[in-house]
Amino acid sequence: MLHCDMDDGLTKAPRTGLVPLRAAAGQAGNVGERAARLGRMMALGLPVPDGVALPFDTVSAVASGAPLPVLPGGIGPIVALRGSAGDGSWGRPQSILNLGLCDAVLPSLSEKIGEKGALEAYARAIRSYAVRVRGLDPEDFENLYYDQMKLSHDLGPQDLAQIVDASKALYQDALGQAFPQDLGTQLAGAVAAVAGEWNAPTARMLRAAHGAPEDAGLGIIVQRMVFGLGQAQSGAGSFQSVDSATGAARATGRYLPDAQGQDAGRGVRTPHMITEDERKAVGQTLPSLEAAQPAAFEALVQGSAALTRGFGDTFEVQFTVEQGALWILDAEPVRRSARAAVQIAVDLEGLGAISREDALLRIEPRNLIETLHPQIDPSARRDILGTGLPASPGAATGKICFSAEAAMAAQSQGDAAILVRVETSPEDIRGMHSAVAVLTVRGGMTSHAAVVARGLGLPCVVGASDLGLSLKKGELRVKDGRVFRAGDPLTIDGTLGQALAGTPAMLPAVPTDAFDTLMDWADDARDLGVRANADTPADAVVARRFKVDGIGLCRTEHMFFEGDRITAMREMILATDVAERIAALDRLLPMQRADFEAVFETMPGRPVTIRLLDPPLHEFLPHSPDEIADLARAMDRPVEDVLSRAEDLREFNPMLGKRGVRLGVTMPEIYDMQARAIFEAALAVGRRAGVSVTPEIMIPLVSANREVELVKARVDAVAAAVAAEQHMSPSYKIGVMVETPRGALRAGDLAKSSAFLSFGTNDLTQMTYGLSRDDAGRFMRDYVNKGVFPEDPFHSLDVEGVGELLLLAARRGRAENADLTLGLCGEHGGDPESIRFCKLAGFDYVSCSPFRVPIARLAAAQATLLSRDGVASKPPE
Amino acid sequence: MLHCDMDDGLTKAPRTGLVPLRAAAGQAGNVGERAARLGRMMALGLPVPDGVALPFDTVSAVASGAPLPVLPGGIGPIVALRGSAGDGSWGRPQSILNLGLCDAVLPSLSEKIGEKGALEAYARAIRSYAVRVRGLDPEDFENLYYDQMKLSHDLGPQDLAQIVDASKALYQDALGQAFPQDLGTQLAGAVAAVAGEWNAPTARMLRAAHGAPEDAGLGIIVQRMVFGLGQAQSGAGSFQSVDSATGAARATGRYLPDAQGQDAGRGVRTPHMITEDERKAVGQTLPSLEAAQPAAFEALVQGSAALTRGFGDTFEVQFTVEQGALWILDAEPVRRSARAAVQIAVDLEGLGAISREDALLRIEPRNLIETLHPQIDPSARRDILGTGLPASPGAATGKICFSAEAAMAAQSQGDAAILVRVETSPEDIRGMHSAVAVLTVRGGMTSHAAVVARGLGLPCVVGASDLGLSLKKGELRVKDGRVFRAGDPLTIDGTLGQALAGTPAMLPAVPTDAFDTLMDWADDARDLGVRANADTPADAVVARRFKVDGIGLCRTEHMFFEGDRITAMREMILATDVAERIAALDRLLPMQRADFEAVFETMPGRPVTIRLLDPPLHEFLPHSPDEIADLARAMDRPVEDVLSRAEDLREFNPMLGKRGVRLGVTMPEIYDMQARAIFEAALAVGRRAGVSVTPEIMIPLVSANREVELVKARVDAVAAAVAAEQHMSPSYKIGVMVETPRGALRAGDLAKSSAFLSFGTNDLTQMTYGLSRDDAGRFMRDYVNKGVFPEDPFHSLDVEGVGELLLLAARRGRAENADLTLGLCGEHGGDPESIRFCKLAGFDYVSCSPFRVPIARLAAAQATLLSRDGVASKPPE
Repeated sequence: MLHCDMDDGLTKAPRTGLVPLRAAAGQAGNVGERAARLGRMMALGLPVPDGVALPFDTVSAVASGAPLPVLPGGIGPIVALRGSAGDGSWGRPQSILNLGLCDAVLPSLSEKIGEKGALEAYARAIRSYAVRVRGLDPEDFENLYYDQMKLSHDLGPQDLAQIVDASKALYQDALGQAFPQDLGTQLAGAVAAVAGEWNAPTARMLRAAHGAPEDAGLGIIVQRMVFGLGQAQSGAGSFQSVDSATGAARATGRYLPDAQGQDAGRGVRTPHMITEDERKAVGQTLPSLEAAQPAAFEALVQGSAALTRGFGDTFEVQFTVEQGALWILDAEPVRRSARAAVQIAVDLEGLGAISREDALLRIEPRNLIETLHPQIDPSARRDILGTGLPASPGAATGKICFSAEAAMAAQSQGDAAILVRVETSPEDIRGMHSAVAVLTVRGGMTSHAAVVARGLGLPCVVGASDLGLSLKKGELRVKDGRVFRAGDPLTIDGTLGQALAGTPAMLPAVPTDAFDTLMDWADDARDLGVRANADTPADAVVARRFKVDGIGLCRTEHMFFEGDRITAMREMILATDVAERIAALDRLLPMQRADFEAVFETMPGRPVTIRLLDPPLHEFLPHSPDEIADLARAMDRPVEDVLSRAEDLREFNPMLGKRGVRLGVTMPEIYDMQARAIFEAALAVGRRAGVSVTPEIMIPLVSANREVELVKARVDAVAAAVAAEQHMSPSYKIGVMVETPRGALRAGDLAKSSAFLSFGTNDLTQMTYGLSRDDAGRFMRDYVNKGVFPEDPFHSLDVEGVGELLLLAARRGRAENADLTLGLCGEHGGDPESIRFCKLAGFDYVSCSPFRVPIARLAAAQATLLSRDGVASKPPE
Repeated sequence: MLHCDMDDGLTKAPRTGLVPLRAAAGQAGNVGERAARLGRMMALGLPVPDGVALPFDTVSAVASGAPLPVLPGGIGPIVALRGSAGDGSWGRPQSILNLGLCDAVLPSLSEKIGEKGALEAYARAIRSYAVRVRGLDPEDFENLYYDQMKLSHDLGPQDLAQIVDASKALYQDALGQAFPQDLGTQLAGAVAAVAGEWNAPTARMLRAAHGAPEDAGLGIIVQRMVFGLGQAQSGAGSFQSVDSATGAARATGRYLPDAQGQDAGRGVRTPHMITEDERKAVGQTLPSLEAAQPAAFEALVQGSAALTRGFGDTFEVQFTVEQGALWILDAEPVRRSARAAVQIAVDLEGLGAISREDALLRIEPRNLIETLHPQIDPSARRDILGTGLPASPGAATGKICFSAEAAMAAQSQGDAAILVRVETSPEDIRGMHSAVAVLTVRGGMTSHAAVVARGLGLPCVVGASDLGLSLKKGELRVKDGRVFRAGDPLTIDGTLGQALAGTPAMLPAVPTDAFDTLMDWADDARDLGVRANADTPADAVVARRFKVDGIGLCRTEHMFFEGDRITAMREMILATDVAERIAALDRLLPMQRADFEAVFETMPGRPVTIRLLDPPLHEFLPHSPDEIADLARAMDRPVEDVLSRAEDLREFNPMLGKRGVRLGVTMPEIYDMQARAIFEAALAVGRRAGVSVTPEIMIPLVSANREVELVKARVDAVAAAVAAEQHMSPSYKIGVMVETPRGALRAGDLAKSSAFLSFGTNDLTQMTYGLSRDDAGRFMRDYVNKGVFPEDPFHSLDVEGVGELLLLAARRGRAENADLTLGLCGEHGGDPESIRFCKLAGFDYVSCSPFRVPIARLAAAQATLLSRDGVASKPPE
């Protein structure tokens, strides 16, 4: 029995199964994270109420019926019990306060904090014990208050004494025994109850979902109770020194006088602002803590600063003011937006609280995406009309446009257009340029709409198949029966894959100085290159804005979809003999050359990797009978010719068809033209800029080295011809885009003829799994939910399968050619885990969508730092 | 000068740079194959004219101007010069006969073979020397004969003496010098000339095409000339003891009296049959050699038999009879059809001339295909209308039918039908059953038509894109303008991929006793299993006829295309909820169970591997608007429903879509039904037959082990349910069809849950190359011609790429599960090189189309024998 033992035993040797709180620092694995943190805070000299920590096994033993170890007397006659799990994210039981309060200690408490506060605390003690430990209905106890409050809003000692008595009676009635009048009984019951809550099936399931192990234990902290209740300068609240949304330094918080624990957040009474600035900002008349209790406020500010310096992070502090004295009950890292995380990390570095490396390692690269696109305000109401795949992040609001023409018309009138289509095709490109976002009801993550939107940085949702689109009727039908028409406002959230009604509030994208600083640090730290995938001169300009090391993938086919080019392209495809084909290619040459000149000019002194034509030719032909008829008329050719050529080109599996180097080998004139355009552009830009431009020519879809040899021989011949014409030899490299499993397996061969290998992990993943990304959309969610695939392999690199091919290819390629440059240019190039894999695999660079470049730069820096630390310096086997 | 040196030096030690012919056996690498063979024949005691062999380097030195080594005198004053290359298939210069004939030796020759023969030989000697060695025009010399023959058909000594004189004069006029009168000069000139012919660019190119190395040398044989010319019992001819077409023992050959070298084959005079039987058979009045010169004939028969025994093969013998004495000039293995090759090998074994192993190793398995299908008579004229892919071998003639209905109607009237379609679809199956051959103008080696035709053993040509087919007009148009209509006769050669006009003569398929014997030996010899791919009970019956070890691939989907099943299948696909889907599956269950019962009954005690449903569901839906309308009507559903479901199911890349285990995971009811059908059938057949039937259930398109676990759990549950219902547990195995590169890479995982892995190398090749077999048809020929791929990887396993995945998977799988059964069930299962690879990789079996089973059985035997001999006992790395 610990009843009223006032002897201070805390400075003596710890009793069996107990850890003095001040000794708990560094023992998170034994007593839980919270106890360890409190111990560390005590070591920093912060005003934490003294106490002990019950380790996991002690709690577990008590829960199984073992007696509670004898607590040291120094804690005090009234204590608080708090849970302490191994990891803060696993959740923990609510604290139980005021344990030990009984008739015997009531007088001394009254003396300390006043009669009213003491009675209030006693009433709470009985209620929480009855409810939490003995399982009585809380409502019965609340009703006692309501009964009293009917008479008066401000309960006096009389009223409270009645509530205490009534509570005791309720307890006695319900349980047939009196409310226990000793700390030992109360505490033992509370520990067992809290341990029981921890082991309840729901709690287990919830924490398992957060990654807790099956046998995760619970530690318990028993601390001297500090009282915010009472008429004196007492109360409770929370405080932090930064703004959660922006990360800017700003003291902020809430405080409730005469309150305990979480009362300030419960909304029973209006909490007071902590600072005068805040009070004025909201026009509050209640006094701020800063004004009312300047000493406690100052202690809070100092305590918070000490925490920041001591822990290297900024915290939300839970505090109680007891008779004017500040006590810190807990502190958890401030919740922060992605933007705030960057600001805080940079500021912490400025304070000397953390190193630059720590600052870089502390930011989750993936979260940077939020800082790069406008987002829907998290507090806005979302009226979700349909969901699809989050094909391109960011959010935008505009008017529904059902055609490219409508989008262009809207833009010309200054309206924001949301282009809504079944799927998009090359004809829609100009409409997409005019739109602020794109929604399709069909297609997958590599559909035309998705790829183009990512390139343009347009928010985009594809495959929103629960929406019904009738272009004929001009209607977008929602499952609940609502119908939206052209011009109706619509919002696209490409980050979450949602189409929303109306115009929810938006948060703008604001690049901050802190962001730029962090990115500069990342560039200093990383030794893995980051390039951008940029298909047009416009893309290249965007890429430069994101400070890339170069262009890792310039898909030339996207250049052909625009303007007159598609016509010349189609003439080339419909050519009936080589001469006619060459004539059409000759018309494409100057356009292609101009494109390349513009791209090279955007990237002076930086590498530009140009992929030769890749898609099957039928992708450039129109599909509908009307469009085909138009084309035939435009080209003065019989419709039958166009139809029959289109039919000839039709493929069962276009992904596995006549594309990539297969076009280059069988219709070599196409690559000849492209090589010439590259060389002429490189020489022209080199002359103008006075620098040597060294384009990297990349051959797609290679599966055998002979393909490389054949293309290389012709490209070299074109280079020789251009050199002869211009009296200057173009400088260039030739390499391979490794997209087929066989290309990876034969990388040793390929390396003999190649200066570089760049892994196109989109296609490589498709072929390694035998899974078309566009078609996988129908069941990928199901597959990931069932755990068939741990993650969508198109989002995060499949290390076990595709990753093995990458490692094997890297090893074989370098074994044949030590100077071989290795890169990755699939969408995985913007995925942090995949980037880390590339670093471990010894790659030279990754290349990703321009809008993911900041993520890649930070992830590359983290991968470099981690590999330097030897944390994971060996590639996975 | 060797002029008239009659001293016999042949028994003395060989002179420098010369090898006595009788010592040439075993020196093929030095003197060429022919010289070595002749030496060996001499060692066997056969009557070969004596002589010497000039090794490669001697010939090469003489050709570069070195003096001819001194020949031993014993060869005789008149000699023949014959070429002898390192390998008989590389070709060689024609022989030069009668060298050394001159005015001085003419009298002694006249004395020996008569004046007329001697003069004829002299005239020939001058002519051949003038033409071959000095490059004069042969026509000038032939005209001398024609001049004489104008006067008389039978030239007398007088006439011949005039021709000799005229020949000399012609020589003198053309070259300004007399015809050389000594053997040394003639021989040196002849050697240089023949070496020159050998080194001519065309000859080099031709032999390089047969695999000869760049520096392949030529040996030369100098032999005593034996004279078939002359009025006495002299002549020349060829003989063999077997029939080239059938391999049956039958003395056969041609003989021309008073003739030299190849005269009998030149058609100047009618050659005599060798035997009386042959003479009578063709009604010839000229005496046979058998009748006219029984001693020489008997010597020939004995010589041929000695050759067979000595060499372990049967030969075509080139012989000369000189004054009644038989001389054998050369012997080459008899040319033989595939059928004859089998007969000969078995007969040789019967004679004790070769071992059974030799007999097995001697037959090219691929050639067996000729023995299994009717073939177009090689001598028939081929009027080729168009060519396509040789999708299924054999030949058939019939009437053109442009629809399945027409084919069925034709069959019912007793007519042979050739089904001609753009492509085939499930609706055509019954028409294919009714047809004798199939022709499509579109599609590749795994198109529906190709796969079904191979299964049915129907000759089939697909992708004959140079033919124009208008079903509307009912016309098949040929490029030359000809038009064929329904009912016109057409012949399909599925072995060569040709469509032919009319009804060329055919050779029937005749399985011989020798074939059966060889197959029995193969089965005894092999330790690699051979199973058949059989999709229906009918296929299984065919497979049993080919004596398979079991069924390695039963593709259940093919069962659904027939009869009512397709309707139930479509109801299942169009079901709007799980209950409706299960109802449709319940209708399919008894049909599927009956199928499996029939298959199990066909294969008592043998393994049957059943692949669960694999193709994407849209393959079961009709495509044309009319068919869709019919289906909607039949199912009493709105057309829109059917259309929209079909549209929902449409895929960009069906090969990489929602098929295989992806159906099984997302619509588990389908596999549940199939598993139930398998178990119920196995138990029923087991009860009836009193044996335990152990089906092997194969999961297709696996890329992750969790897929296997999910399917396995449900299949096990179905088994438990069936066991509870029937009070008997079904016995079964579950395994994986490895078709994706990832499946191969993760074989270690898969092996944990699998009893077997069977490699589906069709799909695995498609995915490893990123190449759709159906679409590759457009450029595969181009690719193989350009050497991009050494061979079509769909025909012969790509050892370097796909093969590496197979080896790696086999190694990883067995490392996890030592009892793992490994098989291959792609089309490569019928390809001898691929079968050899499987043996080296440690596989347990291959499975192939029933009609390729004999090939596989023989190839498996060869692979086993070769691996036992340690010839190639290590797997390729």
